[in-house]
Amino acid sequence: MSVSPIRVTVWGENVHEQRDASVKELYPDGMHGAIANGITKNLGDDVVVVRTATLQEPEHGLTEDVLNQTDVLTWWGHAAHGEVSDEVVDRVQRHVLSGMGLLVLHSGHFSKIFRRLMGTSCVLDWRSDNDRELVWTVAPHHPIAEGVPSPIIIPAQEMYGEHFDIPQPDELIFISSFTGGEVFRSGCAYRRGHGRVFYFSPGDQEYPVYHHADVLKVLANAVSWAAPASREREAPSVSRRPTGWYETGESLPTADPRLAQS
Amino acid sequence: MSVSPIRVTVWGENVHEQRDASVKELYPDGMHGAIANGITKNLGDDVVVVRTATLQEPEHGLTEDVLNQTDVLTWWGHAAHGEVSDEVVDRVQRHVLSGMGLLVLHSGHFSKIFRRLMGTSCVLDWRSDNDRELVWTVAPHHPIAEGVPSPIIIPAQEMYGEHFDIPQPDELIFISSFTGGEVFRSGCAYRRGHGRVFYFSPGDQEYPVYHHADVLKVLANAVSWAAPASREREAPSVSRRPTGWYETGESLPTADPRLAQS
Amino acid sequence: MSVSPIRVTVWGENVHEQRDASVKELYPDGMHGAIANGITKNLGDDVVVVRTATLQEPEHGLTEDVLNQTDVLTWWGHAAHGEVSDEVVDRVQRHVLSGMGLLVLHSGHFSKIFRRLMGTSCVLDWRSDNDRELVWTVAPHHPIAEGVPSPIIIPAQEMYGEHFDIPQPDELIFISSFTGGEVFRSGCAYRRGHGRVFYFSPGDQEYPVYHHADVLKVLANAVSWAAPASREREAPSVSRRPTGWYETGESLPTADPRLAQS
Amino acid sequence: MSVSPIRVTVWGENVHEQRDASVKELYPDGMHGAIANGITKNLGDDVVVVRTATLQEPEHGLTEDVLNQTDVLTWWGHAAHGEVSDEVVDRVQRHVLSGMGLLVLHSGHFSKIFRRLMGTSCVLDWRSDNDRELVWTVAPHHPIAEGVPSPIIIPAQEMYGEHFDIPQPDELIFISSFTGGEVFRSGCAYRRGHGRVFYFSPGDQEYPVYHHADVLKVLANAVSWAAPASREREAPSVSRRPTGWYETGESLPTADPRLAQS
Repeated sequence: MSVSPIRVTVWGENVHEQRDASVKELYPDGMHGAIANGITKNLGDDVVVVRTATLQEPEHGLTEDVLNQTDVLTWWGHAAHGEVSDEVVDRVQRHVLSGMGLLVLHSGHFSKIFRRLMGTSCVLDWRSDNDRELVWTVAPHHPIAEGVPSPIIIPAQEMYGEHFDIPQPDELIFISSFTGGEVFRSGCAYRRGHGRVFYFSPGDQEYPVYHHADVLKVLANAVSWAAPASREREAPSVSRRPTGWYETGESLPTADPRLAQS
Repeated sequence: MSVSPIRVTVWGENVHEQRDASVKELYPDGMHGAIANGITKNLGDDVVVVRTATLQEPEHGLTEDVLNQTDVLTWWGHAAHGEVSDEVVDRVQRHVLSGMGLLVLHSGHFSKIFRRLMGTSCVLDWRSDNDRELVWTVAPHHPIAEGVPSPIIIPAQEMYGEHFDIPQPDELIFISSFTGGEVFRSGCAYRRGHGRVFYFSPGDQEYPVYHHADVLKVLANAVSWAAPASREREAPSVSRRPTGWYETGESLPTADPRLAQS
Repeated sequence: MSVSPIRVTVWGENVHEQRDASVKELYPDGMHGAIANGITKNLGDDVVVVRTATLQEPEHGLTEDVLNQTDVLTWWGHAAHGEVSDEVVDRVQRHVLSGMGLLVLHSGHFSKIFRRLMGTSCVLDWRSDNDRELVWTVAPHHPIAEGVPSPIIIPAQEMYGEHFDIPQPDELIFISSFTGGEVFRSGCAYRRGHGRVFYFSPGDQEYPVYHHADVLKVLANAVSWAAPASREREAPSVSRRPTGWYETGESLPTADPRLAQS
Repeated sequence: MSVSPIRVTVWGENVHEQRDASVKELYPDGMHGAIANGITKNLGDDVVVVRTATLQEPEHGLTEDVLNQTDVLTWWGHAAHGEVSDEVVDRVQRHVLSGMGLLVLHSGHFSKIFRRLMGTSCVLDWRSDNDRELVWTVAPHHPIAEGVPSPIIIPAQEMYGEHFDIPQPDELIFISSFTGGEVFRSGCAYRRGHGRVFYFSPGDQEYPVYHHADVLKVLANAVSWAAPASREREAPSVSRRPTGWYETGESLPTADPRLAQS
């Protein structure tokens, strides 16, 4: 079972909300606010404790302390991926590899952290023209798909289309279609180190997607799925082992000269 | 079918060969020389054209020109991963995502380029104490396993043991065991963008592994497998698409403002 | 590389062609005839040798001899899956596990042989109402996707929709969308034993899909991909091994009492 | 989360226990008894309710009623795979595809049900000569690996070696090595339909493996992992869908003529 309560940090770029009247109107509390509310509503106060953090805060609100107290981080960014400091990206990656769960949302496909964890360009096709999106479940008994209809009908959305340059997902959970006929692997789960990563594409600042009950249900399911089993944040490490070490429990110090070049 | 002939660049760090008498003696032409010879011997002059490149050369011998003329790059590094410039790593990654094949060998698991393409730490357990390594084939009809015995017996080798922090391979081809009882996923294949990546662990500067006929056969097979079908190096790209574009072939310019933040 | 020439057997149920005037008109040589012609046209007489076989023939045209001389078998069935004898299905499975390639087409998802190799029910959603199908490539540099546009536009087709109860494909190559908004994993590749299996969904007896140039190109690519490297048909087998057998090459007889219960 | 309590049926062939004095002595309650006790001890009476069933019972103790009240079934067989009736195998497969979890143990690799769900021959190499088995974890944060050391040391065991003719696991969790140097993918997880399947190789009637604390811990973890989220046993089914059905919820009857040939 996972940690309880699950401590969630909802990270929002918070640029469009400040800059674009249309977005401010759709999301008075920011997309991060809407997402945080949705997760709390779905899982309940005894199951989850949710906070938000934004780009503009010192260290983008993602200090070592904050991450040590985060079981699952959600990430939405779009206009300012380049402004996220490499130092914070390194820190987030280290925490994911050490067990922290990560949900990457929509245009977050182009974030430094998602591209870092995937190793690919993460490019795709797109169009913002009020397509209707249908999110179909291809893994019906996966925990992330629990309690959501197939298809989820999102009346107005930005189209994302293949080819989506990602590694083949460890588990493919949702595939979307759009009015224009495009398809997209919209729900993709990965393991990276000790952590779980889930990419979910629906959501755009110009559409009320983060008020959609089924979308919020998926995010809540994904938080539960991505939460680690333990609060111990242990990074995978190099170990130099003498022969038969497991018979005696003996191992050489883990401080390894090769770690210097990481 | 793949390009013909396959143009291979064998990249070697060339530090141990210069620094350690034992390595210079084992590998008078460098490990990169032994690997290059082995590939040519196995595939033949009409199938493959092999060159070498080393860390010490300008741009580590991996200029834009060289990579444009490389169908498959092999990579061995150990003591100087940190000295490989980020600019060259970016360039190599771009070429892999655009179709260039990549073979990563032994301690190359800790290279910047492998960690970049995997997104994980790539750490492992190790011991250099003359273990015998047995390389077992778990995908017997995979092209990379063609014509090699199972197990391949390597009388003396450095032990690599699990947990090897890599993403689950798209295809697992070899698993090794060592005298001390450790196991290791020693042959792992991945797709990254348009390119194919194969990691093969046997090989250490203190042991004559790159003179082993079966090991060289695997590397030759892997070169054939990783070679792209075309010399056109096309990177995956973002495209903005109007509705029904595929009916008319119309698409907006590929110059997309979001590419600036890559 | 694979065997040359590739010997292909195109198996057709040949029931609709006899029974339904509309089908006979669309496919005067049967769907199997159209498929066979398409493969030959695409690959050429020096690369491939194609024969057909039908349900009505003795042993459904798939005797031990025929299968021994078949490198890749294609399978289309719909109305008479239950009439295929279990003995022939056992034989085909044995040959696939021993190295023969298999292409399963459209309603062949419900064939005994496909369900045998998948282990699942292979059910799906469907509708026959002239949907337009768009076949999108999600693995653009996979050999099976070579030389076909993305999307392939099929003006009129039977809709197949998720949830498609198959094991997660080893490689997902195509995803289709339909006018009604449904999506379907339309190009799925698997390894089973020593053989390669590719399922491709477009194709229905009431629509001229097997005259579509891009569809036939995919089938030709898939034949090349699925063809084994050798004509030796070796089944995976149980072996009892003495300790250190690989040092001496000694092994006990492969005749193993447990094989009796297969 | 999963059903609570988890109702487990531990199925044992119960032939060796009756026939071989050595086995009767090692396992006075049968291997199924030892496994059942181990699961209950690890998970607790409030989490799990365990029963056993054997080959000799009517319908092998696996009636429709029993399976309807089973959330996870474990399977150990060896000498009498052929005596399991096809009707019971059909029933078990239907329940797994409908959501029941399945753990297949050791020589159960050759059971009708495992071969049915895999679609391959499931053959392997073997030797019964007191090898020491080391079970290494390659997916350290997988729930099935929780609380078990890496490696698990099993002092005396039957050797199972590659090539193990199974489909590539959806998740590979354990790899074993043996004194003789062989390796084996000893912990393999799959999804089949709505159900979860886990194969775990350690365990042989001549060795006290099912009294080993770490082995029993793995089995208990696997029971938790495989348990479905709901007691509703819904089989995947064919549905004929009119255009836009999801807008209105309308669908044609699920009784589909094609189901007759299942």
